[in-house]
Amino acid sequence: MLENKERTELSSLGEFALINHLTEHVELYNTSTKKGIGDDAAVIKYDNEAHTLVSTDMLIEGIHFDLTYVPLKHLGYKSVIVNLSDICAMNAKPKQVTVSIAASSRFSVEALEELYAGILVACKKYNVDLIGGDTTSSQSGLIISITVLGEALPEQIVYRNGAKEKDLLCVSGDLGAAYMGLQLLEREKFVFKDNPNIQPDLDGNDYILERQLKPEARVDVVDILHQLNITPTSMIDVSDGLASELLHLCKQSQVGCELYEDKIPIDIQAYELAREFNLDPTVCALSGGEDYELLFTIPMSDYEKIKDTRQVTVIGHITAKESGVNLIAKSGTSHPITAQGWNAFK
Amino acid sequence: MLENKERTELSSLGEFALINHLTEHVELYNTSTKKGIGDDAAVIKYDNEAHTLVSTDMLIEGIHFDLTYVPLKHLGYKSVIVNLSDICAMNAKPKQVTVSIAASSRFSVEALEELYAGILVACKKYNVDLIGGDTTSSQSGLIISITVLGEALPEQIVYRNGAKEKDLLCVSGDLGAAYMGLQLLEREKFVFKDNPNIQPDLDGNDYILERQLKPEARVDVVDILHQLNITPTSMIDVSDGLASELLHLCKQSQVGCELYEDKIPIDIQAYELAREFNLDPTVCALSGGEDYELLFTIPMSDYEKIKDTRQVTVIGHITAKESGVNLIAKSGTSHPITAQGWNAFK
Repeated sequence: MLENKERTELSSLGEFALINHLTEHVELYNTSTKKGIGDDAAVIKYDNEAHTLVSTDMLIEGIHFDLTYVPLKHLGYKSVIVNLSDICAMNAKPKQVTVSIAASSRFSVEALEELYAGILVACKKYNVDLIGGDTTSSQSGLIISITVLGEALPEQIVYRNGAKEKDLLCVSGDLGAAYMGLQLLEREKFVFKDNPNIQPDLDGNDYILERQLKPEARVDVVDILHQLNITPTSMIDVSDGLASELLHLCKQSQVGCELYEDKIPIDIQAYELAREFNLDPTVCALSGGEDYELLFTIPMSDYEKIKDTRQVTVIGHITAKESGVNLIAKSGTSHPITAQGWNAFK
Repeated sequence: MLENKERTELSSLGEFALINHLTEHVELYNTSTKKGIGDDAAVIKYDNEAHTLVSTDMLIEGIHFDLTYVPLKHLGYKSVIVNLSDICAMNAKPKQVTVSIAASSRFSVEALEELYAGILVACKKYNVDLIGGDTTSSQSGLIISITVLGEALPEQIVYRNGAKEKDLLCVSGDLGAAYMGLQLLEREKFVFKDNPNIQPDLDGNDYILERQLKPEARVDVVDILHQLNITPTSMIDVSDGLASELLHLCKQSQVGCELYEDKIPIDIQAYELAREFNLDPTVCALSGGEDYELLFTIPMSDYEKIKDTRQVTVIGHITAKESGVNLIAKSGTSHPITAQGWNAFK
């Protein structure tokens, strides 16, 4: 997508000049950032009582993303989001990120500018500070490694292991749309390979494409939970698919679960496209992944507080460990849930 | 080096099982680590008054290391060390690391076990906790991305920009040996390629090989400075060569410097091997890099406190910005210092 623009070779700038160039527009939004980019380390000071949350994710070209249909700016944005989502999954607020990039000589300075532009848009939208990183060359392809830091009071932090029998299982937003967006992009990529003159047919699928290309981190849901005075008993974000994440929660909490198929929130566009692709929409929601929604459990006594919150759906309840993790189908029959989540090594 | 051992394919384990397998021997040494590996994020709580230091580094096969002569265990060790060094360079103590690894199918589970073994040896030696990370596949080669967190009281933190005119310029340990170790390994690699039956001739070069393959982070020097009640006015670690780092210090502090060639500490093995390779030992010290020593400035009034510390050498003094950054040669002549540091993109 950058073919017609000017092309500056990465080697023409050198490492320090390139880093300076890419980070010259970095703004800091948090008073907790005492020192950002420019020294051997960044310096942070949170409130005295606050705990620090740390998470990290690495994205590899050809494994986690395909630049045939992902614009670099979107990729930069999404790379930040998937990290912020991990902090939200602790019921905490993300505050700082470090971003390391390795790029082969195939990439120009202008290409990395696009990537950084997306990174900085995400930072600005979420009031997160870019405080450091590394920019280097790779032998092949693009590699993005991001570490995110966040802050929460210790009593607010929610782990995966606190779900209790009879708790309600909740999820934010809807599921399966990002996966359908990927299916659509893959289909159009094959059509395009077959005949490069055909324009991609993406009309009417804005929502699912946005879910795949420009996901959001549910900081808003963390805020809502704080406002409702609800501290979930357990929480995880949905990156590998509902089934996989639910199994993590139940395993670490040593509980079972009943998940109701008819309660799983699926967007109508995603539902219809799944049907068009001869896919079961429920399976897409269970195994698709990349939704970056929050899956969490709350005590039954909090039901009244949350029942009118449109951003959250109650989709099941926690049972004894011995009952296992089951999907209660629309027909009323019960089926054990197994993980079909994404595996980078397969 | 693992050819004769059992080989387990990464794909046979799957992502979660692989991460569990590699991290099952992780021990935590710091009470500040409230939650390590196993949730969406790790949780840290430092002392209320302490600030948090964060730094990150990415190492790419073929760019930063060559597995022809670097054993994976050493690589794991060194990957941690280069990050710890960045925290030392702030006059702070490293406490936690996250480690992300991407490996192609060329690597076996046993190979990653070796890499992790080195990582865990470094963590244990430096009382640093491995608190998270990511393990994924790459299309080619091995990529290691590490983020380190550390702790310091705000009044102890030393930046690059505090050097003042008349301050003394100091460096820990000696310089140039890691570079000579690399030259030696490169030479033996070419000899080996020519005739694989020839055993590498590395005798008598233990020190310089160790400097290249198993460098250390100067946490001990940070401790010594604390004990001597010296807070440097500026500090940086020597990763890209003395010349490059000195230019950073002077630029950010807006000062000049006189560096005395005859004061630069060079180990005798490194000196003699440089001569054997027809290299100028001073140039090796100035431009070699990977020493991971600490370069810092102290007020002249602290000279008495530090003069008998064998781990530290006074190598020059800070001048006005207008005087520039100069090397005073053994002959007494003055030469402007220019950066010849390593550039990943060249």
